[in-house]
Amino acid sequence: MRGPTASVIIAAAGTGRRFSAAEAAPSAAEPLPKVFLPLAGRPVLAHTLSRFAQVDEVVEVVVAVPADRVAWAQETFGETLEPGGRPLRFVAGGEERLESVAQALAATDPGTALVAIHDAARPLIRPEVIRESFRAAASCGAAVVGRPVDQTVKQVGEGRRVKKTVPRQSLWIAQTPQVFRRDVIERAYRKRGRIRGPITDDAQLIEALRLPVVMVLGDAANFKITTPEDLRLCEALLTAGWPFGE
Amino acid sequence: MRGPTASVIIAAAGTGRRFSAAEAAPSAAEPLPKVFLPLAGRPVLAHTLSRFAQVDEVVEVVVAVPADRVAWAQETFGETLEPGGRPLRFVAGGEERLESVAQALAATDPGTALVAIHDAARPLIRPEVIRESFRAAASCGAAVVGRPVDQTVKQVGEGRRVKKTVPRQSLWIAQTPQVFRRDVIERAYRKRGRIRGPITDDAQLIEALRLPVVMVLGDAANFKITTPEDLRLCEALLTAGWPFGE
Repeated sequence: MRGPTASVIIAAAGTGRRFSAAEAAPSAAEPLPKVFLPLAGRPVLAHTLSRFAQVDEVVEVVVAVPADRVAWAQETFGETLEPGGRPLRFVAGGEERLESVAQALAATDPGTALVAIHDAARPLIRPEVIRESFRAAASCGAAVVGRPVDQTVKQVGEGRRVKKTVPRQSLWIAQTPQVFRRDVIERAYRKRGRIRGPITDDAQLIEALRLPVVMVLGDAANFKITTPEDLRLCEALLTAGWPFGE
Repeated sequence: MRGPTASVIIAAAGTGRRFSAAEAAPSAAEPLPKVFLPLAGRPVLAHTLSRFAQVDEVVEVVVAVPADRVAWAQETFGETLEPGGRPLRFVAGGEERLESVAQALAATDPGTALVAIHDAARPLIRPEVIRESFRAAASCGAAVVGRPVDQTVKQVGEGRRVKKTVPRQSLWIAQTPQVFRRDVIERAYRKRGRIRGPITDDAQLIEALRLPVVMVLGDAANFKITTPEDLRLCEALLTAGWPFGE
């Protein structure tokens, strides 16, 4: 049985400040943003899109890319998400991630029930985890894929001196997708200007409204490609047959 | 120039409760602890030992293994760490990690300046990071290899409901090795009975004494093998030629 319909927003407008694209693609005249770099023969973004293409509830995908890449991306990746020929559109992102998502959100079909926001640089998201996040968002209003922290966490001060060990029992690392009922995310984005302090993920906007957010268990392999080494790790995993259990 | 001498303790007595050894080695009559499972053709522990063998300051290695594996391990891995023929000894660990390390600590040569404690299940530690942790411990008294947290961290309560986003700017994930001046770690282990609450790493014992601990930047690849998937990830990395830059 198919669940509520979902619009998917892929955040791909990042410039990858921590990623030396020149190192990974030394021959490129102008360095490509990392999500357009090749991974096992096709762009990182193509892998990410193919994961969402396997989820029936997805009725459209809007990808926020750097402004000068919109036409190029539409030509390269096409105008439909297969199978099913669902619309695949590229919009110009902003300087900050929040602005990029806001632009993409404005371009989604207002008739879908859910909005999922995903980092393009997480190509190893499993479709079953996407489906689980959709179910959790439909029931709770907001759902974040993540992992419980299973390592010791230190609070560190000046000169990398340890201040204390942080109790980790209740800590989770947030990944994406982060999925929301449409009314919830639209309201949160309208009010985003009122929040002080750094915003590092979309769920924080919901938390600021004191609305419920629930965690959904994801995979360790759903990491974000940040460095050239991460890209090689990802390639090694795909070459080794990831996801191993499927 | 060689730095202060170091005894290395490898914690390998864990039963791997989170690791289904049967899955990784279905033909084994009695499941092997995970650090004895094959990784790219030799046991995980052999990889870990080979990393420390590349560090000149290491003058001995004591490995804590399950009590029923001591004789077998000594026969399998030998009595010297090559190159250099440095002593390699196996001792019976305890029920808890802290007890295993205490047993191994008692078996080290009291004449070495530093004691490094490392998880056997982290075979991808780079020798240069080991050396850096030795230098930091010699200068500060206690050093922990780790990584700054670069993802959003949530505090989560009942029913996986998010309570809040935790400011991550000052948070680091602790890995191993954790390296200590001998007087510091011996004192900390003598007083370990006085500490309340869960102890998840050795540096916490030093923190409880209000002695300085400094973080040393490690690699993302220095993760701990916890699941069969982690073992395959490790194998994929080694097959792909990790460490890529060396």
